[in-house]
Amino acid sequence: MERFTVDPARFLADLHALRQFGKDGVGVRRRAFAEPDIAARDWLAKRMSDAGLTPHFDPVGNLFGLAPGPSLLLGSHSDTQPEGGWLDGALGVIAALEVARASAEAGCSPISVVSFQDEEGCFGALTGSSVWSGKLDLAEADTLTAADGTTLAEARACLGGRAGDFIDPKQFTGFLEMHIEQGPALDLAEEAIGVVTGIVGSRQLEITVQGQQNHAGTTPMAMRRDALTTVTRIVAGLERAFANVVTPQSVWTIGQLHLHPNAPSIVPGRAVFTLQWRDEDADRLERMEKVINEVLDEVRQGTGCAITSRRLRQMLLPVPMDGQMQTALCQAAEAVTPGRWRSMPSGALHDASNVAELMPVGMLFVPSINGISHAFEEDTAEADLVDGLKVLADAAQRLARG
Amino acid sequence: MERFTVDPARFLADLHALRQFGKDGVGVRRRAFAEPDIAARDWLAKRMSDAGLTPHFDPVGNLFGLAPGPSLLLGSHSDTQPEGGWLDGALGVIAALEVARASAEAGCSPISVVSFQDEEGCFGALTGSSVWSGKLDLAEADTLTAADGTTLAEARACLGGRAGDFIDPKQFTGFLEMHIEQGPALDLAEEAIGVVTGIVGSRQLEITVQGQQNHAGTTPMAMRRDALTTVTRIVAGLERAFANVVTPQSVWTIGQLHLHPNAPSIVPGRAVFTLQWRDEDADRLERMEKVINEVLDEVRQGTGCAITSRRLRQMLLPVPMDGQMQTALCQAAEAVTPGRWRSMPSGALHDASNVAELMPVGMLFVPSINGISHAFEEDTAEADLVDGLKVLADAAQRLARG
Repeated sequence: MERFTVDPARFLADLHALRQFGKDGVGVRRRAFAEPDIAARDWLAKRMSDAGLTPHFDPVGNLFGLAPGPSLLLGSHSDTQPEGGWLDGALGVIAALEVARASAEAGCSPISVVSFQDEEGCFGALTGSSVWSGKLDLAEADTLTAADGTTLAEARACLGGRAGDFIDPKQFTGFLEMHIEQGPALDLAEEAIGVVTGIVGSRQLEITVQGQQNHAGTTPMAMRRDALTTVTRIVAGLERAFANVVTPQSVWTIGQLHLHPNAPSIVPGRAVFTLQWRDEDADRLERMEKVINEVLDEVRQGTGCAITSRRLRQMLLPVPMDGQMQTALCQAAEAVTPGRWRSMPSGALHDASNVAELMPVGMLFVPSINGISHAFEEDTAEADLVDGLKVLADAAQRLARG
Repeated sequence: MERFTVDPARFLADLHALRQFGKDGVGVRRRAFAEPDIAARDWLAKRMSDAGLTPHFDPVGNLFGLAPGPSLLLGSHSDTQPEGGWLDGALGVIAALEVARASAEAGCSPISVVSFQDEEGCFGALTGSSVWSGKLDLAEADTLTAADGTTLAEARACLGGRAGDFIDPKQFTGFLEMHIEQGPALDLAEEAIGVVTGIVGSRQLEITVQGQQNHAGTTPMAMRRDALTTVTRIVAGLERAFANVVTPQSVWTIGQLHLHPNAPSIVPGRAVFTLQWRDEDADRLERMEKVINEVLDEVRQGTGCAITSRRLRQMLLPVPMDGQMQTALCQAAEAVTPGRWRSMPSGALHDASNVAELMPVGMLFVPSINGISHAFEEDTAEADLVDGLKVLADAAQRLARG
């Protein structure tokens, strides 16, 4: 089989063309099913068609550009956060388009393209790939509502005559997703490529500390059951106890905290906070939960506060990337950016975690300048975008050669 | 001079009569200048008159019951919190009435009575005694507004023809205020009387921790500048550093805390919280502030977060009670409730702290059941109410004897 060569200028031109849909300064507002999103998908369908692919919308708005016969599938998503960056999922979609187009032009193995719908979660999260992968029933998804009260059923009605059937995943031999890192690791290390080893799993608890609300002047310190100082004991306990369990890739966050009654002259009677932790290793996620419960028990006994916890959302299991996919990506990275790449987990969720239900998946990252994403100022150096494109193309050819 | 004897039944009857004004279940709603407050003051003026005292409203609504010639002044306030208890200031006013009445009936030294207005701060705080003591100019006070937008000038217009001039404080030889403790110390120790050594001073800072808001999945722990974990370091630092400075009576409280953006999947970028501390000793208040600044410096250097602080409100200086007043109260307490009393600071503010600008002041506490006050369920055992009355009467007689 012959090799093909991607065209960086054509790729960058398409990437900037997609940026115009919902453009706001240097950023983009392209929420799923909003007018800029649908206009962008119609434009993308035309570009797929021009590239010799057959564009196809499925019922939930995922847009495929289908190559004939069994093919590798490349892509990501083209919807954005309310105040989104211009790259995020768009990068992976346009890189996929260029690789598929270059491969088709050179008569190489067929490569298909996808832009999943609502990865950014107007309705739930990773909505399009969740439905396609079978994780989420369409009838159930239809009842999900956006912040303005619109249901998914109402939103996807705007697809009109575009929507066809669901695509049978069996025609795809595997899925590769290129994405910006959305974190600082590659940028800080001045590396060009991250080959994703797995998408981390996460768990989240809502923890309630019930102490005793009291007058801040008349209640001696020794008699207080202060919910906030109890939270600080929990944090200190977690920092100490996690040290024996975690790796440098493990993360945990108390991102939300509400005090009651939250007044300067009243000893806080109640604190409610979220504790979220993520890791690539399902066993470690479980061990971290055990440690959390031990710390809560210890603090409960020490402070006299009642401490209760409940799971706030579904546990997300870690999703390891396919070994063969990782190998192809590592070899491609070493060929294109020798010594300037690393293997790393993805701390953020991606459509690839759903597609992994259907076929082997792999992912690669390019650097995010200052680690910024989900913000207008999100950006990546042009040379890094092109290196990412070349690694994706190289890996696709390695996989096609088998 | 002959001794006089108070009448506990008459005292309790008056206390329950005052409770009817604004009664709500077991509690009371009697906000300053609201209809129940003015009706209660008119009733109280009549009871003063019946007791041989000359009732007199001053321009800000303080109600005096004046004995002829130089006299000791006893009293407190009869307004309540929006959801107030039945005792709070009312206890001190009715106890004063009974002591003055009994003294007058027995032909003993003249004793005057006062019910200050708006101690509970519809307009500012301790409004009536602040104006009378000269701490707050009436013209300035008139511009203070209640939560509903009413100014004090508008509110006090309801006094109509009642309001006379300000009373010259020089006619009073001293002031004694009896109050519920509003804290748990006496109740827990099963003691009957607290002789107040001083009203604590307080200081309050608003502290802002500025870290870096980040994605909770993609930002490694070692790269985070997490505003909340920085707050926990501040709390731990304060606990450690205060240990060398404080007494068991010193208190400090973080009662209010706001995180930004306060979302489970985002590393908190900013925390803003109040730090309030109170102590009876002005030097110790100052030393505690020095310790706070040292801890903030230490944490600032350790975490890389910017930490700034500003004074949120006027510093309140501690107000020591007069030595002779304390001696009289201690002797009275030992006589009435031998071995069942203690000297203690007041962690809460009282009108006595303003009256101390004008004359020698003393205060005594009776127990609050479970330390509860500013709530409908606030209560004190009847025997403790009567013991308080007797101690107040005994101390007044000791002071009259000189």
